Amino acid sequence: MTQKKLNELKALLAEVNDLNNAAAVLGWDQATYMPAGGSPARGRQMATLAKVAQEKFIDKRVGKLLDGLAKYEESLPYDSDDASYIRVTRHDYERALKVPPAFLAELNIHGAESYQTWTEARPANDFARVRPNLEKTLDLSRKLADFFPGYEHIADPLIDFADYGMKASSIRALFKELRENLVPIVKAITSQTPADDSCLRKHYPEAEQMKFGEDVVRQLGYDFNRGRIDKTHHPFMTSFSIGDVRITTRVKEDFLGETLFSNVHEAGHAMYEQGNDPAHEGTPLAGGTSAGVHESQSRLWENIVGRSRGFWEYFFPILQSKFPEQLKGVSLDQFYRAINKVEKSLIRTDADEVTYNLHVMLRLDFELQLLEGKLSIRDLPEAWHERFESDFGIVPPNDSDGVLQDVHWYGGIIGGAFQGYTLGNVMSALFYGEALKAHPEIPNEMKQGRFGTLHSWLTQNIYRHGRKYTAPELVKKVTGADLTIQPYIRYLKEKYGALYTL
Amino acid sequence: MTQKKLNELKALLAEVNDLNNAAAVLGWDQATYMPAGGSPARGRQMATLAKVAQEKFIDKRVGKLLDGLAKYEESLPYDSDDASYIRVTRHDYERALKVPPAFLAELNIHGAESYQTWTEARPANDFARVRPNLEKTLDLSRKLADFFPGYEHIADPLIDFADYGMKASSIRALFKELRENLVPIVKAITSQTPADDSCLRKHYPEAEQMKFGEDVVRQLGYDFNRGRIDKTHHPFMTSFSIGDVRITTRVKEDFLGETLFSNVHEAGHAMYEQGNDPAHEGTPLAGGTSAGVHESQSRLWENIVGRSRGFWEYFFPILQSKFPEQLKGVSLDQFYRAINKVEKSLIRTDADEVTYNLHVMLRLDFELQLLEGKLSIRDLPEAWHERFESDFGIVPPNDSDGVLQDVHWYGGIIGGAFQGYTLGNVMSALFYGEALKAHPEIPNEMKQGRFGTLHSWLTQNIYRHGRKYTAPELVKKVTGADLTIQPYIRYLKEKYGALYTL
Repeated sequence: MTQKKLNELKALLAEVNDLNNAAAVLGWDQATYMPAGGSPARGRQMATLAKVAQEKFIDKRVGKLLDGLAKYEESLPYDSDDASYIRVTRHDYERALKVPPAFLAELNIHGAESYQTWTEARPANDFARVRPNLEKTLDLSRKLADFFPGYEHIADPLIDFADYGMKASSIRALFKELRENLVPIVKAITSQTPADDSCLRKHYPEAEQMKFGEDVVRQLGYDFNRGRIDKTHHPFMTSFSIGDVRITTRVKEDFLGETLFSNVHEAGHAMYEQGNDPAHEGTPLAGGTSAGVHESQSRLWENIVGRSRGFWEYFFPILQSKFPEQLKGVSLDQFYRAINKVEKSLIRTDADEVTYNLHVMLRLDFELQLLEGKLSIRDLPEAWHERFESDFGIVPPNDSDGVLQDVHWYGGIIGGAFQGYTLGNVMSALFYGEALKAHPEIPNEMKQGRFGTLHSWLTQNIYRHGRKYTAPELVKKVTGADLTIQPYIRYLKEKYGALYTL
Repeated sequence: MTQKKLNELKALLAEVNDLNNAAAVLGWDQATYMPAGGSPARGRQMATLAKVAQEKFIDKRVGKLLDGLAKYEESLPYDSDDASYIRVTRHDYERALKVPPAFLAELNIHGAESYQTWTEARPANDFARVRPNLEKTLDLSRKLADFFPGYEHIADPLIDFADYGMKASSIRALFKELRENLVPIVKAITSQTPADDSCLRKHYPEAEQMKFGEDVVRQLGYDFNRGRIDKTHHPFMTSFSIGDVRITTRVKEDFLGETLFSNVHEAGHAMYEQGNDPAHEGTPLAGGTSAGVHESQSRLWENIVGRSRGFWEYFFPILQSKFPEQLKGVSLDQFYRAINKVEKSLIRTDADEVTYNLHVMLRLDFELQLLEGKLSIRDLPEAWHERFESDFGIVPPNDSDGVLQDVHWYGGIIGGAFQGYTLGNVMSALFYGEALKAHPEIPNEMKQGRFGTLHSWLTQNIYRHGRKYTAPELVKKVTGADLTIQPYIRYLKEKYGALYTL
């Protein structure tokens, strides 16, 4: 009987999974190859897939089967596949049940409209145009949170969507400590002569950049038999099954860093999902467990590996052979300094790994204040300017590169959108530190272009679990302790202490 | 009340349409860009989409709404949008209802397995391997037909799926007359010195072929704002909405004809669907009305236009400028003869427009005999050899290029798969003749690279109607009479009479 129930549940959820993955294929196609004329129908098609998947997921039969499987679940070890399957499904199901479908539809339609307006308002530097949308987004975000009563902070349910197990209070405490450590480092570095990154800013033809970017991620362990790279306006990773995890990239012919680091970043996300236990294929256990853990993998590969001196001991001669003219006379140390240039800058996504977190903290604080009602949308642009000047010593010249720069608030909800980036940075150093404890040979292997030991350790300790453990559980399992910023701060101090006087 | 019912029906069917179009996107991706590792999950995802779409379509509510709308339909002109919408939906619905979902699932699973076996058996020249599959396919095909009792010939329900309104008896009569006219033409031509097509068989680099193939179909009227061309193993056309109708192509660097005529052929299919009335977007009225009418458009553009002397009066100098070395000293007449070379050959898809129909007739006759029980699968390869020798004077050297050459029987059902190709040829000349009656200037415009008059006439008289009229209705509407082979025979005699002594 139990097995029959479990099989029935799995069959139901496999359909939901297929529908969601089909929607992801349509999304990928929309961003890569769809002709402009396909746009209106594509929006409808994706909305229909989401609606049908949601209807099938919140079907009462799912709840009944979960109830019927509760005793079986209790009889199993917590981290057995079956217990985890039932637990994660119940968590998703109960969360989905709390949000009325009509509200969800309203949220999605509003999100699409708001996104559309933003795509026009940002280039026009026209915050006034998106203001009514944003006010409604804030209103809907608060309503969404209120479907989850009993929260400590109104942002908690929204944070929980992305980073299950985290709360505004715990993130605030973590970010406070991080900020106290970061600000002096940023101050020390930015008062010194800036690094010269002119060697990255020559003409680097697209085809060669694409080829090199592909070769690098193949060598890191991204499996092209189960993935591919295409060009899009904004790079992203998307997954249709464990056997088909794709990344996208973009090229700037006048900046060498763009394609390469974007590829390594997205391949970090992709290797996480390619590394899922094949037994979890098509189930809610496949994927990544939280925004933060996902970002820890993109950041680990992009920054800790991809911007390390050891990595470039191996790759720089190869890069030089591809671009002999552009990199003539550039030393490894010059190149290494260039790709790790720290500077106060306007745009989060272009920021170096030291200042990056200050961008995130600013956004998180505004999200919390907006949701608390302590800040109004009307006052947001001015607040952004003030805070930015205070944190970065720069006044943004406009809203386009200020409050309008990130899509997050304009396409979805306000709350929970940004903390994952910094949680990811913090966890990237934490996990890497554990990998080094287990395999001190990793840095030396990297100097020889070998990444298999690191990739295997990550697969074994993080990737294969998929969503089996929550982020806090995973951190505890991997490190034996709760999340701490210390390894990240040590990493930054060590790396940047060698590049600058700290 | 009526409007409410119609709106409800439209909302239900819009979802079905979205799910089917989503499945088409997944199919396109599978054929173009999907990495090999994505294959197992993709099969499941497409099966789920088909299943959910089917469930939603055969929902009792659809039947109730159709019943409730019958009086409204009767009150409207036959070809009004609403009456056509209800009529075509009812036709599809009643047909879908007759096939039990479990049978459909069995058919689909068997088709996928059988196709997979065929992909291995054909290169291995191993008919024995596919024989058990093919026997089951024949059995399932007969069962499928039997869900539609009251037929005159057991193939009729299967023919009806592809070419609604046609029957084995009417096709047999048509094909008999066509055969009597064709055989002497083939005999006359093939007894003469074969045309020299060596100018097509030089080295033609891929990039230039792709570019020229793209330029040509753009000029014919294929709208790249609502379409695109990608490479696949076998070329096809697929549609995700009226705003997104894509074609695929393939390149043989040692044969100039492949990419070009494949593009023109597929663009013919695509212009039909791009030319649908935008008011039919997302409804069962969008698309093409039958396999035969669809093929009439691909054939009209590929053969009547694309292999005409007038077309090449314009395009040959351009082609020569793209491939100056390869086409040096080749005259327009030499080139025109080369692209219209007639010869008895093994492979249907490579056949010229004169012998092509003999390939189709052979297959149709076998389909009918198999379904009638007058021929067994066991005896099929031998029967193929005998008939082929008798029709073409050639003995196929193996089964790979004999009975194993076409995917149709191996991926789906036996019955109704082939007649559309020849119906298309016949109708292409019929429709083109009507276009000439209305616009005698078309051939002269073509010589100047102008195709707008023809494209507009086709849009107005065929494309915009989508599925509103059945093929026999459309023929009657366009020509004022029933389907006749005479214009097609006249076209062949005139064209090939100028190239050969007939």
